[in-house]
Amino acid sequence: MTSVSIVNVTSYTGLELLRILSQHPQFEVSSVTARSAVGKRLFEVFPLLVAMKHTNIDPHLIITEEPEQSELAFVCLPHAAAAESVLSLLERSTKVVDLSADFRLRDAAVYEEWYKHVHPSPSLLETAVYGLCERYRSDIEGASLVANPGCYATAAILGLLPALVTGSIQPDIIIDAKSGSSGAGRSLSLSTHHAELNEDTSAYSLAGHRHLPEITQELEKAAQIGEHPARSLRITFIPHLVPMTRGILATCYANLDEERRIPTTQEIRSLYDQYYANEPFVHVVEQSPHTKWTLGSNQCLIYPMVDTRTRRLIVISCLDNLVKGAAGQAIQNANRLFGIPETTGLLVHPLYP
Amino acid sequence: MTSVSIVNVTSYTGLELLRILSQHPQFEVSSVTARSAVGKRLFEVFPLLVAMKHTNIDPHLIITEEPEQSELAFVCLPHAAAAESVLSLLERSTKVVDLSADFRLRDAAVYEEWYKHVHPSPSLLETAVYGLCERYRSDIEGASLVANPGCYATAAILGLLPALVTGSIQPDIIIDAKSGSSGAGRSLSLSTHHAELNEDTSAYSLAGHRHLPEITQELEKAAQIGEHPARSLRITFIPHLVPMTRGILATCYANLDEERRIPTTQEIRSLYDQYYANEPFVHVVEQSPHTKWTLGSNQCLIYPMVDTRTRRLIVISCLDNLVKGAAGQAIQNANRLFGIPETTGLLVHPLYP
Amino acid sequence: MTSVSIVNVTSYTGLELLRILSQHPQFEVSSVTARSAVGKRLFEVFPLLVAMKHTNIDPHLIITEEPEQSELAFVCLPHAAAAESVLSLLERSTKVVDLSADFRLRDAAVYEEWYKHVHPSPSLLETAVYGLCERYRSDIEGASLVANPGCYATAAILGLLPALVTGSIQPDIIIDAKSGSSGAGRSLSLSTHHAELNEDTSAYSLAGHRHLPEITQELEKAAQIGEHPARSLRITFIPHLVPMTRGILATCYANLDEERRIPTTQEIRSLYDQYYANEPFVHVVEQSPHTKWTLGSNQCLIYPMVDTRTRRLIVISCLDNLVKGAAGQAIQNANRLFGIPETTGLLVHPLYP
Amino acid sequence: MTSVSIVNVTSYTGLELLRILSQHPQFEVSSVTARSAVGKRLFEVFPLLVAMKHTNIDPHLIITEEPEQSELAFVCLPHAAAAESVLSLLERSTKVVDLSADFRLRDAAVYEEWYKHVHPSPSLLETAVYGLCERYRSDIEGASLVANPGCYATAAILGLLPALVTGSIQPDIIIDAKSGSSGAGRSLSLSTHHAELNEDTSAYSLAGHRHLPEITQELEKAAQIGEHPARSLRITFIPHLVPMTRGILATCYANLDEERRIPTTQEIRSLYDQYYANEPFVHVVEQSPHTKWTLGSNQCLIYPMVDTRTRRLIVISCLDNLVKGAAGQAIQNANRLFGIPETTGLLVHPLYP
Repeated sequence: MTSVSIVNVTSYTGLELLRILSQHPQFEVSSVTARSAVGKRLFEVFPLLVAMKHTNIDPHLIITEEPEQSELAFVCLPHAAAAESVLSLLERSTKVVDLSADFRLRDAAVYEEWYKHVHPSPSLLETAVYGLCERYRSDIEGASLVANPGCYATAAILGLLPALVTGSIQPDIIIDAKSGSSGAGRSLSLSTHHAELNEDTSAYSLAGHRHLPEITQELEKAAQIGEHPARSLRITFIPHLVPMTRGILATCYANLDEERRIPTTQEIRSLYDQYYANEPFVHVVEQSPHTKWTLGSNQCLIYPMVDTRTRRLIVISCLDNLVKGAAGQAIQNANRLFGIPETTGLLVHPLYP
Repeated sequence: MTSVSIVNVTSYTGLELLRILSQHPQFEVSSVTARSAVGKRLFEVFPLLVAMKHTNIDPHLIITEEPEQSELAFVCLPHAAAAESVLSLLERSTKVVDLSADFRLRDAAVYEEWYKHVHPSPSLLETAVYGLCERYRSDIEGASLVANPGCYATAAILGLLPALVTGSIQPDIIIDAKSGSSGAGRSLSLSTHHAELNEDTSAYSLAGHRHLPEITQELEKAAQIGEHPARSLRITFIPHLVPMTRGILATCYANLDEERRIPTTQEIRSLYDQYYANEPFVHVVEQSPHTKWTLGSNQCLIYPMVDTRTRRLIVISCLDNLVKGAAGQAIQNANRLFGIPETTGLLVHPLYP
Repeated sequence: MTSVSIVNVTSYTGLELLRILSQHPQFEVSSVTARSAVGKRLFEVFPLLVAMKHTNIDPHLIITEEPEQSELAFVCLPHAAAAESVLSLLERSTKVVDLSADFRLRDAAVYEEWYKHVHPSPSLLETAVYGLCERYRSDIEGASLVANPGCYATAAILGLLPALVTGSIQPDIIIDAKSGSSGAGRSLSLSTHHAELNEDTSAYSLAGHRHLPEITQELEKAAQIGEHPARSLRITFIPHLVPMTRGILATCYANLDEERRIPTTQEIRSLYDQYYANEPFVHVVEQSPHTKWTLGSNQCLIYPMVDTRTRRLIVISCLDNLVKGAAGQAIQNANRLFGIPETTGLLVHPLYP
Repeated sequence: MTSVSIVNVTSYTGLELLRILSQHPQFEVSSVTARSAVGKRLFEVFPLLVAMKHTNIDPHLIITEEPEQSELAFVCLPHAAAAESVLSLLERSTKVVDLSADFRLRDAAVYEEWYKHVHPSPSLLETAVYGLCERYRSDIEGASLVANPGCYATAAILGLLPALVTGSIQPDIIIDAKSGSSGAGRSLSLSTHHAELNEDTSAYSLAGHRHLPEITQELEKAAQIGEHPARSLRITFIPHLVPMTRGILATCYANLDEERRIPTTQEIRSLYDQYYANEPFVHVVEQSPHTKWTLGSNQCLIYPMVDTRTRRLIVISCLDNLVKGAAGQAIQNANRLFGIPETTGLLVHPLYP
């Protein structure tokens, strides 16, 4: 068994890691931290754990301030705080999957622009690997630090990758995403107060959401592959909050390359099918997918179609923001880090209805 | 008092008409029909009405098969059935606000293409007025038949009109709309079964939603105004179902006209402010609006902004699909039809939270 | 017009008072206070008000720290703070409807027991009237201070009054109540965080909810009327939080008096019908009522039935906690205080669906 | 591997069986039936299954009209239809867990009274075992037919068993239960139409819910154990529908035995703790439990407390109606039937938030 720390276990991603790891045959959670709950036992913070007597997770584990020595750590801290923790973990030779944004962007200047503070450890940006197995599988294997992608970014990038690497679309891209409230975390705010969010839909972060530079970085990189030269994309990404707890649905729009024959939906689907043929957690579906089809599972469902009338590609991509969008993907990365089958502990059916 | 019939009162729009008319000082509901409930009293179909003793609506009104003679009728039937009813009402000199799609499209061929049957009364298409007071106020005044706009169409058209009539945007338009379940009506279906829709988001009608031709017709007409010649628009409209009962939020995307200087958000907002300066039911707001801000009210809230990075106009438009998107707008039209102040019976605050 | 102050307008009850008063022909909101928002305009705190141009409420009203002189004040402060405000308002000869619990209990000792601090003004307890028009209509008319009942208390008391005043039931009473989240107010807490409450049901305040002494006081008083001597009741009241915004449904259980013939449901319903025959806002319904039938309206719907198998009376009582359970009832009381028709401004249909 | 049939797989309980069995190491689903979907593959009915490539469930399994020969069958048909299917399965020596109500009641006359038709196979009632492992573990082991308890019945019986077998309470019992919409199944109805149920709470089946005779049978049986003679109980059971998909919370009320000293909450909890000490799926919790703590898990959480003021026992019991209330419990029974550890395939953490 590999010993595992969860740093800031009291977040929703921390709790979700516990849930998934409770079934994992090779990772053992030996250390959990949370500054606000030092000295408490896990079940005191999450009373639902008290019933969990017979799984890999010990609900009596005591929460500490700093992680104890372990082989692997999942860092669930907010950005900036995360980088600090990551540095100290790496020094102790712990492999790290960082669920924050601190090591996702290659360029420290872009980080500073979007996160409004100087990057605490720019040198690490080169060695950190962007933890999208579908793109960087082999890099992840040898890494010591994996930057787990953002939830919106995962949905958007997986939805658009096949179109970009094949040069099928023009550089104008619109991503209209809808998310449940758990993506906003466990911190209280009026916008996630039940009476406010229930029976409400709104757009937010209109001036620019922090997942945008991450999406741009990865999609531009994808667009450079193959026969197409480097080019910059013009991406608009507007997130929306809808009254549900889990789930992200990203609807992506792009004009098809007018210099080629406009492909049929069937052709585009074949292209997507091929691209993801060997992926265990990405599925190209034959009808418009529902976020509920992914509830609690590590799947990303993708539905590409061609609107022949407007010569546009429309791609709908959905996932559970806490699983494929966070904790599940983190474990997928960790499996890869430790050379065990990538799907270990992750092959569960969604909860439906 | 003006006598009013509601045809197919057992629909959600029928019920919503009852709710709003219960406070209306000049319309009196004298006749209600519903084929499935002939002979029943209103409160037997809608038990919530039983408590309504002291309003304009009599909960003991008996539901009939055909409307009795009245000065005004609201037709809440599905398309095709609606046209039939409208014809017979007009013959009896009843003024009609039709909430179906039957008289919204000017071109019978387009109707046939989207609704899959021959238009039952193409000659009426010329005299029917598209019931968007913000556009056709004076035409409505003299009309005998008003085609009440679709809920999505109202949100989208009001959101884009100022940009189009001023030639501010290019012809590529994307409308990503999110709607609550009441828009799907009171008919049962698996997609609106509570256990399926609760905690779910999905896109639907990807092959083309029937509000698209209506949006196209009106936006293309708007684009012809002023200095710009007629031109066809390339509109993609994708509706989504989100787990709430009421509300539509349309997020509209268009590239700004590159031949002019890219305006600032402030300039675009001034342009919108001016366009809607005298409108009682359209408000240009200064922050991203929430559907909940319109719950039960006849307001359409519009937030335009410029994404300078991508040189795009983004407009968020929201309303209550059963009020400004249906019954409220129908009464607004009816007020206009009968020459009474347009806001009569409609100045109510939204229910919040 | 009567000038009205709303003290602590930034609460949900404050906002609901604005909503209802926006349609009230005789009360004019001239002063609004809120310590956390002094100097702001109403629409800056509640952006949804910005669209409300043509009603009784001016969205540009500036929020002050203390209320300006007015003829009537609604106090929406938490307990203790409310009493202080009430005292100062009464000194200025302003009539007060206090929506807090400070003046609901006749006995200062009971207040101290349940609210854990000494009552700030026990002498006022004698002159304050419990603001349940259905019980104390004539007392309210001459009062200067009305203690607006709690939301749960209103549902429970109205549900059980007819049974108690007629001595139909034994003193053992169970009240199992279910409430939406708006009852918990606008203050943030983990239990009303959307991701926690959505898709969840739980019981709370098991050690004793503060509405219990109020329910007990009023029901014991009711039980003393008529032929029956004073007796103490044995009331269990368990509130539950369910994932909706508005609405309370109280299911009340009591054994029927075994010394009399067990009445039929029809007989009990007649008894209830008679008791509430002249009430504009209490309706005895003929089938199990839904909270949604009261959404936004001032109605309390009551369904009494006899379970002949167990010889029990079961009464289901429901209302909108922010209307009949708070702001609507407060305005009903205020109407009575100022000698205008009790239903003024309150005859609105519920929002459905 | 044991071959398993699921009869009427298109129900929510059928789907939930697939979900749980996808992780079960010893049961293999080899046959699925559904009259309305004969000839279709599983993923065509449940498109969410298409992504499930690497589990025990084959999404390409073809749905048949009748089950093929297997060692075990789960019958998910409605009552009456279920009995027919069970008979034919038993004849083929298939062991059966019947999720319908057909074999839960010992007395065919009671069945006829509540289900309004003659029991199709009264002789089997003697050999069928009521599938509550916590009560009939050893009987289940040797059985060929297990009648899986109702969802409400499971919550109520587990909540009250310890109090009854120890004679702690008087025979008057009130069970006020709240359920999500999935308990009503996948069949469409206005009461589970999203726009109707969202933001609504109501009581239903006031004339008597069909789980009542089952609850009565089992609780009366429990009350006869030990020193206490047989006695009949006076049980009121009122179910409520709340706007969530999964979860039941039963709040149970009973007067404590007045002939003994009133126990403290601590004493009652010890008694419950002891009673369930060895149960893997029943947990006595130390604070009021939330349905969400059981989402997707097979746990039943129980919180007993003494209201000393009224000398009442209050027990709150909650579970996921589709898991411990249906499919999970069915698999728990099946494990027992086949002599494998009772917890096999069932030790999963709830999905939270």
